[in-house]
Amino acid sequence: MPKPECLEFFDSPSDTPFVIEHISEEFTSVCPKTGHPDFGNVTLRYEPAAVCVELKSLKMYYQSFRNDGIFYEAVTNRLRDDLASAMSPRWMQIITDWKGRGGIRSRIIATHGNVPAVWVK
Amino acid sequence: MPKPECLEFFDSPSDTPFVIEHISEEFTSVCPKTGHPDFGNVTLRYEPAAVCVELKSLKMYYQSFRNDGIFYEAVTNRLRDDLASAMSPRWMQIITDWKGRGGIRSRIIATHGNVPAVWVK
Amino acid sequence: MPKPECLEFFDSPSDTPFVIEHISEEFTSVCPKTGHPDFGNVTLRYEPAAVCVELKSLKMYYQSFRNDGIFYEAVTNRLRDDLASAMSPRWMQIITDWKGRGGIRSRIIATHGNVPAVWVK
Amino acid sequence: MPKPECLEFFDSPSDTPFVIEHISEEFTSVCPKTGHPDFGNVTLRYEPAAVCVELKSLKMYYQSFRNDGIFYEAVTNRLRDDLASAMSPRWMQIITDWKGRGGIRSRIIATHGNVPAVWVK
Amino acid sequence: MPKPECLEFFDSPSDTPFVIEHISEEFTSVCPKTGHPDFGNVTLRYEPAAVCVELKSLKMYYQSFRNDGIFYEAVTNRLRDDLASAMSPRWMQIITDWKGRGGIRSRIIATHGNVPAVWVK
Amino acid sequence: MPKPECLEFFDSPSDTPFVIEHISEEFTSVCPKTGHPDFGNVTLRYEPAAVCVELKSLKMYYQSFRNDGIFYEAVTNRLRDDLASAMSPRWMQIITDWKGRGGIRSRIIATHGNVPAVWVK
Amino acid sequence: MPKPECLEFFDSPSDTPFVIEHISEEFTSVCPKTGHPDFGNVTLRYEPAAVCVELKSLKMYYQSFRNDGIFYEAVTNRLRDDLASAMSPRWMQIITDWKGRGGIRSRIIATHGNVPAVWVK
Amino acid sequence: MPKPECLEFFDSPSDTPFVIEHISEEFTSVCPKTGHPDFGNVTLRYEPAAVCVELKSLKMYYQSFRNDGIFYEAVTNRLRDDLASAMSPRWMQIITDWKGRGGIRSRIIATHGNVPAVWVK
Amino acid sequence: MPKPECLEFFDSPSDTPFVIEHISEEFTSVCPKTGHPDFGNVTLRYEPAAVCVELKSLKMYYQSFRNDGIFYEAVTNRLRDDLASAMSPRWMQIITDWKGRGGIRSRIIATHGNVPAVWVK
Amino acid sequence: MPKPECLEFFDSPSDTPFVIEHISEEFTSVCPKTGHPDFGNVTLRYEPAAVCVELKSLKMYYQSFRNDGIFYEAVTNRLRDDLASAMSPRWMQIITDWKGRGGIRSRIIATHGNVPAVWVK
Repeated sequence: MPKPECLEFFDSPSDTPFVIEHISEEFTSVCPKTGHPDFGNVTLRYEPAAVCVELKSLKMYYQSFRNDGIFYEAVTNRLRDDLASAMSPRWMQIITDWKGRGGIRSRIIATHGNVPAVWVK
Repeated sequence: MPKPECLEFFDSPSDTPFVIEHISEEFTSVCPKTGHPDFGNVTLRYEPAAVCVELKSLKMYYQSFRNDGIFYEAVTNRLRDDLASAMSPRWMQIITDWKGRGGIRSRIIATHGNVPAVWVK
Repeated sequence: MPKPECLEFFDSPSDTPFVIEHISEEFTSVCPKTGHPDFGNVTLRYEPAAVCVELKSLKMYYQSFRNDGIFYEAVTNRLRDDLASAMSPRWMQIITDWKGRGGIRSRIIATHGNVPAVWVK
Repeated sequence: MPKPECLEFFDSPSDTPFVIEHISEEFTSVCPKTGHPDFGNVTLRYEPAAVCVELKSLKMYYQSFRNDGIFYEAVTNRLRDDLASAMSPRWMQIITDWKGRGGIRSRIIATHGNVPAVWVK
Repeated sequence: MPKPECLEFFDSPSDTPFVIEHISEEFTSVCPKTGHPDFGNVTLRYEPAAVCVELKSLKMYYQSFRNDGIFYEAVTNRLRDDLASAMSPRWMQIITDWKGRGGIRSRIIATHGNVPAVWVK
Repeated sequence: MPKPECLEFFDSPSDTPFVIEHISEEFTSVCPKTGHPDFGNVTLRYEPAAVCVELKSLKMYYQSFRNDGIFYEAVTNRLRDDLASAMSPRWMQIITDWKGRGGIRSRIIATHGNVPAVWVK
Repeated sequence: MPKPECLEFFDSPSDTPFVIEHISEEFTSVCPKTGHPDFGNVTLRYEPAAVCVELKSLKMYYQSFRNDGIFYEAVTNRLRDDLASAMSPRWMQIITDWKGRGGIRSRIIATHGNVPAVWVK
Repeated sequence: MPKPECLEFFDSPSDTPFVIEHISEEFTSVCPKTGHPDFGNVTLRYEPAAVCVELKSLKMYYQSFRNDGIFYEAVTNRLRDDLASAMSPRWMQIITDWKGRGGIRSRIIATHGNVPAVWVK
Repeated sequence: MPKPECLEFFDSPSDTPFVIEHISEEFTSVCPKTGHPDFGNVTLRYEPAAVCVELKSLKMYYQSFRNDGIFYEAVTNRLRDDLASAMSPRWMQIITDWKGRGGIRSRIIATHGNVPAVWVK
Repeated sequence: MPKPECLEFFDSPSDTPFVIEHISEEFTSVCPKTGHPDFGNVTLRYEPAAVCVELKSLKMYYQSFRNDGIFYEAVTNRLRDDLASAMSPRWMQIITDWKGRGGIRSRIIATHGNVPAVWVK
C-alpha cells in the first residue's frame, strides 16, 4: 500500500531555482487484473520550492507499492499527486517506463505545474 | 475479425492531462491480396479524457486481427477509429511499422484530434 | 521499360488525412552510359487523397525498371511523375539512395505538392 | 496444423559439402496453455546430402504452425524431425528464439547428426 | 517462500538430446540482512532427460521468491537444487546477475552435472 | 569540510568573452543520513569575468568534500555558491551526476546568472 | 590538371525543382608544399536548373586532380567554380573532408547561390 | 586502515562447487606518494569452500581503505590475502582497474590457488 | 615559445565566402604550475577574408607551444589572438579539448567576430 | 634524453606471482628523420620479481623522451631494456601504438623473458 507518510523532506539548500532528477530502475508493483508483478523505471524530475525529498525515504516510498495491485496509469498519477502535494514544487514531472506485458511496452507521463520546454523530454 | 467489443476501459485516475504510450511488437494480420501473414509493430499514443484502455483487453483486441485479410492502411485507420470512438481521447496517434514484403518496408501514421508538436515523432 | 500500367490502387480507407511510407531496398536499373546495373533504395512517402497504391503492384512497377537504361535523376522524377499523376495525392516525396559507382554514392529527392516540414527528412 | 507435405525439394547442385542457413523472423504459433500467440525467430542450418529445401515451400510449412497450440520445445523438435526425415541432410540444426512471455525469453536448440563445432553457436 | 510445488512439467518431445535456455529479466527477492528488495536476471540452461519445465509455472515459481529474505548465493543454489531434483536433466546451469547494491554488482553461477564446454559461458 | 579557501585564481587571459568547462569524474563525499560514501561526476561550466579558477586548486577544493556528510542538493548548490562568489563569472552552471544508491541515480543542476540557451544542456 | 572540359551534362529530366547529392570517397590530389598525396571525401549537393552532371564524367573530372599540386581550399573552390559555371544550378554546395596530415584533419565548405537551411548540414 | 575484521561470512549454501563474482565500481584509496585520492574498480571472483563473504560487510571492508595511503599493487595483494585467508576459497582472483593518473591507467591481477582457465579473463 | 612568425598564409582562392575547419589531435604544451606536459585537441574554424593559413606552417606554429608553460585558457586565447590578428578572418572559433589531469577533463572555447549560429557547435 | 635514473622502485608487496599493467596514452618523442613530434600509447605489462616500478617516476621517465629524436622501434626496445634491467621482472612486455604519419599507423611489441600465452595479447 502506497505510504506517502514515509516520505521525508529537508529544507532546500538554496533559494536560487535549481533542478533535481532521480531515476529509479527498480520499481515493482502488481497488476490489479492478473495479479502478476509489473516492473518499471520511474523518473522524478522537479524544481524545489521550499523542500527537497530525502533519497532513502523516496526509496522506501517506492518500495511501498511492491505488493499493491494498481494500474500503470494510477501508479504514475499517484506518484505525481503524493509527491507534489507533499513538496509543493515549482514544477514536477513523473515518467514511468514499463517492461513488456503480453508483448506490449508502455510509458506514462504525468506533470504538475509548468514544466519548462527544455525539461519536457 | 477485429473485435472492438473485447476492449475494456477504466476511469482515468486523474483529471490532470497526462500522456499514455503502448508499443506492441507482436501484431500480425493477413494480406488480403496474397493470403500471406503480415507482421508489424503498433504504437498507440494518447491523452485520455474520461477513460483509459485496459492493457490485457487491448492485447485481445490486437489479437482479433490475427486471421483477418486487411491492408496496412486499413488496419491503421481501423485501430484509430475503434479506439478513438470508444475512448474519446483528447488526442490520439496510431503508428504501424510493417516488416518487409517483397523487399518493401512500410510505415503508416493516423491521428485523431490535435497531436501536440512534441508528441508527433 | 517502366510500366505504370501495372500499378493498382484501392480506395483510401479513411477521409481523415494520414501518412504512408514505403521503403524498397531492392531497386535496380541499368546505367544508360555504361550498361552496368545500378542498385538503390527507394522511399515513397505520401498523404493519400482518394486512393492508395497496392503494395504488390508497386513492387511489380519497381521491377519494370530492371532492364531499363535510365539515369538516377530520371528514375527519381519518373517515379514521382507516374505515381503522382496516377494517385493525385495531397503531397508526395520520392527519395532514392544509390550505392557507390566508381567510388561515388548518390541521393536524389523529388517532391509533389507541399510536403509538411516534419516529413521533409 | 504442421503440414510437412507442403515442403518441396530440389537436387543439391553439388556433391561437395556446403552449408545452408535460412533465418525466419516471422514465426508464430499459439501457446497450448494460455491460448495466446507466441512469436519467434527460427534458424534452419544444414549441410545437404542429396536435396535442398525450396524456400517458398519452407515459408508455407512455417505458416502451417500459425494457429497451432504447441510448446516451444515441441515446435523446435517437430521442425527438426520433419525437415531431417524429408531431406536426410548430413547434419542439421534448428534454433528457435522466442520473444518474452511473463518477463522470460527462451531459446531452444535441436540438432540432427553431428553438427561441426564451428556451427554449434 | 520458494514454492517448487508450483512447478509443472511436460514430457520432453524428443529422445534426441537438445538444449533449452530461459532468461528471466524480472527476478526479485529480499535481502535477509537489510530487508530491502534485490533485483536480478536469472538464466536457466539445461538439456532435458525425460521432462521439460512448463514456462508459466516457472514464472510462478520465480515469483514465489518475491517476498523471501534470501542471499544471492542461496537463491542461485536453491534454484539449481529445486529444478534439478524435479527434472533430473542431463545437465543444468543457473546464472544470476544482480543489480548494484552499495556500488557492487554480483554474478553467481551454479551447475548440475557436466555442462559441455561450449555452454559454460 | 569544503575548503573554498584552497581555491586559487589567475587573471583571465582575455577581455573577449569565452567559455570554460571542467569535468571531474572522481568526486566523492559522504551521505549525511547513512554515513556511506557517495560517488559522482561534477561539471563546472562558466564564462569568466576577471578571473579563472586554477585547475589543481579546483581539484584540491573538490577533494575537501571527501569526508564531508552532505546531501547531493547541498553539494551542488555549495559548489555553485563558493565558485560564483569567489570568481563573479558572467554566468556559471554546476551539474552533478550521482551513481546509483538503492537503485536510484540522481542528477542536480544549479546555475548562476543567465546561462545562454546553447550551453544549458 | 583539373579538366572541367571532360564534364558532361544531360538535360534535367524535370522542371519541378529537386535535389541531387553525389558523395565521392576516393578523391586524391597532391600537396603543393610537400609533394605528398592528399586523400579526401567530396560531397556535391545541388538543385539543377537546366542540366545535371553525368556521373561517369564527374568521376573523370575528379580523377583529373590526381597529380595536381593544389591546396585543399583551392580544390574546394575550384570544384564549386567549375561545376557551378558549367551547370548554372539553382544552388550548389561542395564539402571536402581531408584525412589527417601531420596530425591535422580538415574540412572545407564552399557554396553557390542560396542553399536552403534544411540542406546546409 | 584496512579492517578485515569487519568482514562477515555465512555458510556456503551448497557443497556443490559454484562461482561468485562481485564487481565494485566505487573503490577509493590514497596515493602514498602524492597524497591524492586514487579511484578504481575491484573484481572479486572465487569458488567458495566452506563460507561466502557477506556483501554489506565486503562493502564496509572496501570502504576501510578510503583514507589509506597504499600503492595499487599493495591494495590488490592485500585484498587477495585478507579475503583468501579469511575464507579459504577453492580459488580466488582479484582484479583492480585504476583510473588514469598523469595519463597512465593501470590494472593489477592477483590470484590464490588454481584459477580454471575459463575464469582467468 | 609560441612563434606566430612561423605562420604562412596564401591568398584565399575565392572571394565567395566559405568555411575552413582544421582539427589537430596532437597538441601538447606544459602546465605552468606543475611542469608536467598537457595533451589536447585543437579545432580551428574560420571564414577567410583575404588569406588562408597554410597547413604545414600551422602545424609548426602548434609545435612551438611544445615546451611552453602556459594555462589552457591562455593557450586558447593566444591561438585565437595570433591567428585572428594575422589573418583578419570574417569570423573565427578556437575549441581546445584537454585530456584528464587529476581526474578533470577541460574544454575551452574562444571566438573572434560573429560566428554564425550553425557553426557554434 | 631518456633518463632511466629517474625510475624509482618499491619492494613487491607479495611473493605470490601477480601481473601489473600500466597504459600511458600520452607518450611523445621526436622523429629523428623529420624533426616532427610523434605521439603514441605505451603499454607496460609485467610480473614483478623483487620490485615494482613507482607510477609517478614511470611518468617522469616517459616524459624524458619528450624532446628526443628516436625511431619507434628504438623507443620500444629502449623502454624494454631500461625497465627490464632495472627491475629484473619474471617477464615483461612493451607495446607501443603510434598515431598515423603519412597515412600509416604503427605498433611495435618487445618482450623480456617468457610471456605466458594468456598475456601475449
